[in-house]
Amino acid sequence: MQHIKEKMGVFQERSAQALDQILPSIEILPNRLHEAIRYAVLGKGKKIRPLLVYSAGAIFGAPDEILDTPACAVELIHTYSLVHDDLPSMDNDDLRRGRPTCHKMFDEATALLVGDSLQTLAFQVLANPSLAVPSDHQIRMIELLSIASGSLGMAGGQAVDLESVGKQLTLSELETIHTLKTGALIRASVLLGAWCYPKIDTSTLEKLDQFALRIGLAFQIQDDVLDVESDTDTLGKPQGSDMVKDKPTYPALLGLDQAKQKAQILLHEATEILKSIDGTTEYLEWLARFIVTRNY
Amino acid sequence: MQHIKEKMGVFQERSAQALDQILPSIEILPNRLHEAIRYAVLGKGKKIRPLLVYSAGAIFGAPDEILDTPACAVELIHTYSLVHDDLPSMDNDDLRRGRPTCHKMFDEATALLVGDSLQTLAFQVLANPSLAVPSDHQIRMIELLSIASGSLGMAGGQAVDLESVGKQLTLSELETIHTLKTGALIRASVLLGAWCYPKIDTSTLEKLDQFALRIGLAFQIQDDVLDVESDTDTLGKPQGSDMVKDKPTYPALLGLDQAKQKAQILLHEATEILKSIDGTTEYLEWLARFIVTRNY
Repeated sequence: MQHIKEKMGVFQERSAQALDQILPSIEILPNRLHEAIRYAVLGKGKKIRPLLVYSAGAIFGAPDEILDTPACAVELIHTYSLVHDDLPSMDNDDLRRGRPTCHKMFDEATALLVGDSLQTLAFQVLANPSLAVPSDHQIRMIELLSIASGSLGMAGGQAVDLESVGKQLTLSELETIHTLKTGALIRASVLLGAWCYPKIDTSTLEKLDQFALRIGLAFQIQDDVLDVESDTDTLGKPQGSDMVKDKPTYPALLGLDQAKQKAQILLHEATEILKSIDGTTEYLEWLARFIVTRNY
Repeated sequence: MQHIKEKMGVFQERSAQALDQILPSIEILPNRLHEAIRYAVLGKGKKIRPLLVYSAGAIFGAPDEILDTPACAVELIHTYSLVHDDLPSMDNDDLRRGRPTCHKMFDEATALLVGDSLQTLAFQVLANPSLAVPSDHQIRMIELLSIASGSLGMAGGQAVDLESVGKQLTLSELETIHTLKTGALIRASVLLGAWCYPKIDTSTLEKLDQFALRIGLAFQIQDDVLDVESDTDTLGKPQGSDMVKDKPTYPALLGLDQAKQKAQILLHEATEILKSIDGTTEYLEWLARFIVTRNY
C-alpha cells in the first residue's frame, strides 16, 4: 500500500501546482481580490476531491495532464463553497485549515467576491478549448459539475442545512442534506475523472456513481465523528462546533458507535462495487479507506 | 422602427418564458431557496442582455429557439451579480426593480445562496448537451461567459469599484472599472448571440466586440446620468444613490453635458461599426440607441 500512499502525495502536489498556475497572479488588477483568492485556495487542504478525480481517471489510464483540469475545477468549487459557508450570514466561522477564514483575513465583501470568482473559474478551466478530451465529453463534464454545485446539489444542501439548524431531523432527512451538501461534489469528482477516459461506458459510470454515493456519505459521517472525537489543532477548525451550533449529525442521531458502524458498512459496499469494475481501482479503494479512517 | 420595437417586446417575452421554464419549481426542495431564486430572476427588468443575445443572433438568422439558452445564461449571471451586489457587505441596497432586494425579502444567507445558484445555473443551461450549436462553439460560449464573469471581468470590476469608493479617480480608471463591471457581460451577450451562428468568422466577432465595447461604456454613462436626472419611481432603485455613496461617476468627472456627449460619440462609433457588417444589424442598432436614450 505504501506506493499508493506515495502516489496520493504526488497527486496532491500536482493539483496544488496546477491550481497555483491557474489562479491569477497578485500582480494583476484587482490585486487584493487575487491575493484573497490565492489565500483561500492555496491553504493546506486534504485535496480529497482532486484525489478522487485522479484516482477515478487512473482506472482506465487517463493521463494526469488531462486530469489536472477537472481536479482543479472540483477544488475551486469546493473552496468557493467553504469561503461562502464561513461568512457571518452563514456559519460565521473564524478558523479554516488552521488559519483565519477569508473574510476574517480580508473582509466580507472580498470573501463574497472570492467565492463568486472561484466558482466562475471552475467552469472557465473546464471550458478551456484546448482540454484534450472529446468535446461532447467536455460538455458533459461541465454540465455534471454545474448540476452537482447548484440548487439541486451543493448549494441546495447548504440551504436545507441552514433551515434544519435546531430542528430534530430523521435519519433520512439528514441523509438528504448530506447527499446534496457534500455528496454531490464527491460524486461529480469521481465521474469527472472517469469522463476523461474517451471510451468510458454508461454501465461503469453508473457503478462509479454508486461507489461515490457511498463514500460521500461515509465522508460526512466521519466528518461528524471527528467533530466529536478529534481536536481543533488536528482539524484546523474548531472541534465540537456542530454541537455548539446545534447542527444535526450522525453521532447525535445514531450514537457514536452506530455512526462508525454505518461508515464501515458504506465502505464495505463501496469496495465491493469497485471489484466489479475491470481496471486499476486500487487508488479509489485506498481513498475510500482513507476517507473513513482519517483523523483530520 | 415600430416593428423593431415590437420585436424587442417579443424577445423580452421569450426570455422571460425561457427563464420561467429553466428555474426550478417552488415545489422542489429546497423550496424557500427556489422561491427566492424565482423572486430575484422573474422581477421586471429591462432584459438588455438577453435582447443583445437575440439581436446579435438575428444578424445571421440564428434561430430564436437556440438563442433562448444564451439569453437565459446572461440574464442569470446578471441577476446573480445584482443579488450579491445588493448585500449589506457590498452596496447594502434595499430596493431593486421597484421591490425589496432579495436579502430584504428573504434573508442574507438565502440571498447569498440565490446568487451562488444562479451563477451555477447559467453555466448549466449553456452546457446542455442538446443545445443545437456545434460542440466547439458551445465550449467557446461557456468559456467566453466565464471569462466575462470572473475576477478579470464582472467580479473583478466589482472589486475595483469597491476599492475606489471615496477616492478621486481619473477618467481612465473609471473606464477600466466599467469596462470590467458592466462592459464584460454586455460584450459576452453580443458575442454569445453571434456564436450561435455556425459559420461565424473571426473578423465579424472582432467587429461585434468593438461594437459591444462601446455600447457597454455608453450603457454605464447613461446609468450614471439617470442616477442624476431620473427619479426613484422610474428607476425602480433609489435615485441619487451614487452621490450618496460617493461613487465615482461620469457626470461627476466630466460634468453632465460632457458625459451625455461622450455617450453620443460612443453610439455613433458603435453604429458605424455595425454598417461594416453584412447582415441584419437593425436590431442591434436599435438597441444601441435605446441604451443611450432610455430613461430607466
